[in-house]
Parts: sequence; structure tokens; C-alpha cells
Amino acid sequence: MSGTKTGKLIGVGTGPGDPELLTVKAVRALGDADVVAYFAKAGRNGNGRAVVEGILKPGMTELPLYYPVTTEIDKDHDAYRSQITDFYDASAEAVAAHLLAGRTVAVLSEGDPLFYGSYMHLHVRLAGRFPAVVIPGITAMSGCWSLAGLPLVQGDDVLSVLPGTMGEAELQRRLADTEAAVIMKVGRNLPKIRRALAAAGRLEAAVYVERGTMKNAAMVPLGEKPDDEAPYFSLVLVPGWKDRPGGKDRPGLEGKV
Amino acid sequence: MSGTKTGKLIGVGTGPGDPELLTVKAVRALGDADVVAYFAKAGRNGNGRAVVEGILKPGMTELPLYYPVTTEIDKDHDAYRSQITDFYDASAEAVAAHLLAGRTVAVLSEGDPLFYGSYMHLHVRLAGRFPAVVIPGITAMSGCWSLAGLPLVQGDDVLSVLPGTMGEAELQRRLADTEAAVIMKVGRNLPKIRRALAAAGRLEAAVYVERGTMKNAAMVPLGEKPDDEAPYFSLVLVPGWKDRPGGKDRPGLEGKV
Repeated sequence: MSGTKTGKLIGVGTGPGDPELLTVKAVRALGDADVVAYFAKAGRNGNGRAVVEGILKPGMTELPLYYPVTTEIDKDHDAYRSQITDFYDASAEAVAAHLLAGRTVAVLSEGDPLFYGSYMHLHVRLAGRFPAVVIPGITAMSGCWSLAGLPLVQGDDVLSVLPGTMGEAELQRRLADTEAAVIMKVGRNLPKIRRALAAAGRLEAAVYVERGTMKNAAMVPLGEKPDDEAPYFSLVLVPGWKDRPGGKDRPGLEGKV
Repeated sequence: MSGTKTGKLIGVGTGPGDPELLTVKAVRALGDADVVAYFAKAGRNGNGRAVVEGILKPGMTELPLYYPVTTEIDKDHDAYRSQITDFYDASAEAVAAHLLAGRTVAVLSEGDPLFYGSYMHLHVRLAGRFPAVVIPGITAMSGCWSLAGLPLVQGDDVLSVLPGTMGEAELQRRLADTEAAVIMKVGRNLPKIRRALAAAGRLEAAVYVERGTMKNAAMVPLGEKPDDEAPYFSLVLVPGWKDRPGGKDRPGLEGKV
């Protein structure tokens, strides 16, 4: 160690899925990095890794950080929390070993690193010990409303970003108390989300988008989407801008749905 | 017109200010476009235009859309609304003239085009008449929390994006009812925002950021920011992720402020 300059930690937002939605800065950082690290399920590479497939240098050192298999354990259980905390601690130390050896580590983070991103678990453990830089990325929600051509917020609109996991009454209350909303983590919460939107009087305008900006993207007015399976990372968008010129029940979806 | 194929309208997000935070897709679209259009104050070029200064093709046709000078008129007044609506109508027709002639028009939009962006005024007037594509951009708020290294939201956090223009009581109520918040349009609303944060018990964690990712960026814990002038486009960030490891009063700002 003595005399060795430590490397830099770089959180790299990889955006919503389309490799062209990487920023110029992210592409440059990946070209300059010594190691690329990413979280993934065991046996998979993860979406962030797939996005950068075409631009990684041949032979670049990769550090996949595989989540422990926890399907047997309730997520609210202390055993799960302890296991996942141990995993993030060990992941941070695996990254730290490269940084201590003077290597710059780019950590891939789908969407934007500090916006619900797994990179945050490394950042809070390492940013106090090593030089750290975060390169923002296009969020999944931004990729989705752009794909839909759906103006989301304008002027003095309030935007609420809500997890679909919350209770139905609270979801309804918050939907009735905002100009625009993005509902994340839709998946099996879709029937509940639909009921909350209807009760709040916002179902007509809601748009369902899955896999925004990936090749198999799909979007549909939520009213026409059956309550069958929805991927966990699908979104529901409720646009604001009430006074928009030519406003319709489904603003901005001209010819797109 | 007969036989002429119409051009394409492209809303191009130019991000928060750093030219390297343009996406690869935005750079390509600007290289392919025939005309670059942008809103600006009379006598200025606008921030979006400044961001792309180094990448525009020499001799590219530019279509600046200058806001009418309205300082003499109250913004809530019908005369203002009528004047600004006429301006957006005329701007859309100026863009349409190029599209009808078969030229592809890239409209610059600071941040993300459909997230409080002026491009939306053209989109709603033209997307039904011409092929239209929106290229998302890094939002100003994302640029700011990345610069600050501030983890904003994690897990099931609710995020509220709030205009600093709203009434103090409502601002306080909303700040007490959310895990994380971004307060936009700070400017002269700073003293009111500070009071609302204090009353909601959120002042300690709040971070003030101005001109995020521009060369003259500045950030400071809001508690240390005097109530003097604040640029209109400055932001206040209130981070969520209550259970973050090593959580402090000012999470994530290790060595950055």
C-alpha cells in the first residue's frame, strides 16, 4: 500500500435500458475505468451490464456482486435484513480492495444511481473513505414518459413518486392530493393501484408503461390493461398540466398507444 | 408540399448544464438534424443552446424563439396569458414551417423535455400533426443530488417534487408528509421555504444547491445559507432513506460541502 494512490469510486447511471441513453460522461468514465462492478442476481448479468455490453473494453476486469438467494426468507424478517446488510458490507469491501490497490472502479447503476439505486449501498459505505463521483443517469420514469410522448409536469405542478407497495387508502389519498404521479413497483400491486386511481378520480388519465426504452417496451392506457401479470419494474404515469392546450382525457398519447 | 415528406420533430433534453451530461442519443440527433430550435429571452441564447455550443455543425440553421418581453404585465393577468399563448402558437407555426418543408427540427430543452420543460408547449401543438420523438435528458434535480453525492430515495420512499411558489402552510404540510422532497423555484421564496422546513422538522437534512453541474455550482446545508438572493433555478433537496447505514443529520455530504 505505501505510496500507492487510491483509486476513484464512480457511480455510473446506465439509464433506462437503451444504450444510446447513456450520457457522454458515462461512456467516457467506462472507457477510463480499470474495473466495472455491478449488482446482479446469481447466474445473471443484470440490466445495467447488458446496457454497456457494446462499449466495455475487451478484457476489462469485471466484479459482479451477486445478491444472496433469499427467496426462503420473509423480507421483513430480521434474518433477511441481516443477510442483505452483510452482503452490502462484503460488496463494499470487495470494491474497496480494488480502490486500495489504486484502481478506478465504475459501479453500474440502472437509471440514476442516487434515485432508488443499489449503488447507494456502496456509496454510503465508501464515499467517506475514497474519492467518489456520481454520474447521473436517465431515470426509468423519464424514459417511460418520453417513450409515451406524455407531458408529465408543467408550471407549478406537484409531482408525487409513489411505491405501488403502499396501502390502498394511503395511495388513494396521495393520488387525490397531487397534480401528477409516478407509481413505481407495479407488478402484483396492479389491481390495488387501479382501484386507488379510480377512487381518486385519476384512472382516465393514467398510462401503464413496461420496460420503457427497452426493445420490448409496451404502453397502454391503464383502463385497457388487464389485471394479469405486470413486471415488477413497470410504471404507471399520471400526467399533470391540467390546463394544457387541447387537453384530452389521455394527454399527449397522440398515435402512440 | 406535394410529394415532400414532412420532417421529424425531436425534443432533445440537454440536461442540467454540463455538456458531457448530454446522452449519446441527443448528440446523434443534433448531428442529424437540419434545424436547431430553442426558447430564449430576447438578446440571449439560453442555457440549452450554451450546452450544445461545442457540438453543433457549422452553419446549421438556428431558430431561436424569443419570449415576448412581459415585465410590465402581471403574470396572473389575462393579457399575459393571451400574449404567451399567442407566442407559443406562433413558435409552433415557425417550427411547423420547417417540418412541412421536410426538415428535421431538434428543439433544445434544458433538463428533460417533458418534465417542466418549455418544449412541451410545442409538443402538444405539433405531435398530432408531425412525427415526434422525445429524447429524455438528465433533470436539474438529478444533476444536483449527484453533484452533492446525496442519496435521495431508497426502497419504498415517497418523493415529492414541490414548487417553492406554493403557500407556506401547504408547503409545510407536504414536507411533513413525505420521505424525500425536491423544492424547485427557490429564488425569493427561500425564507418561506426555510420556515416551512423548520416547522416540518426537516431543516436539518435540507441541502441548498444552485447551478448544479454548471461551472459555478454551489451547495451548502440550507441551515447555513443566508436569506439573501437565490437564483430562481436553485433547488432544495431533502433526502429520504431514513434507515441508511451510518445515517447522519446530513447524509451523504461527506467532504462535499
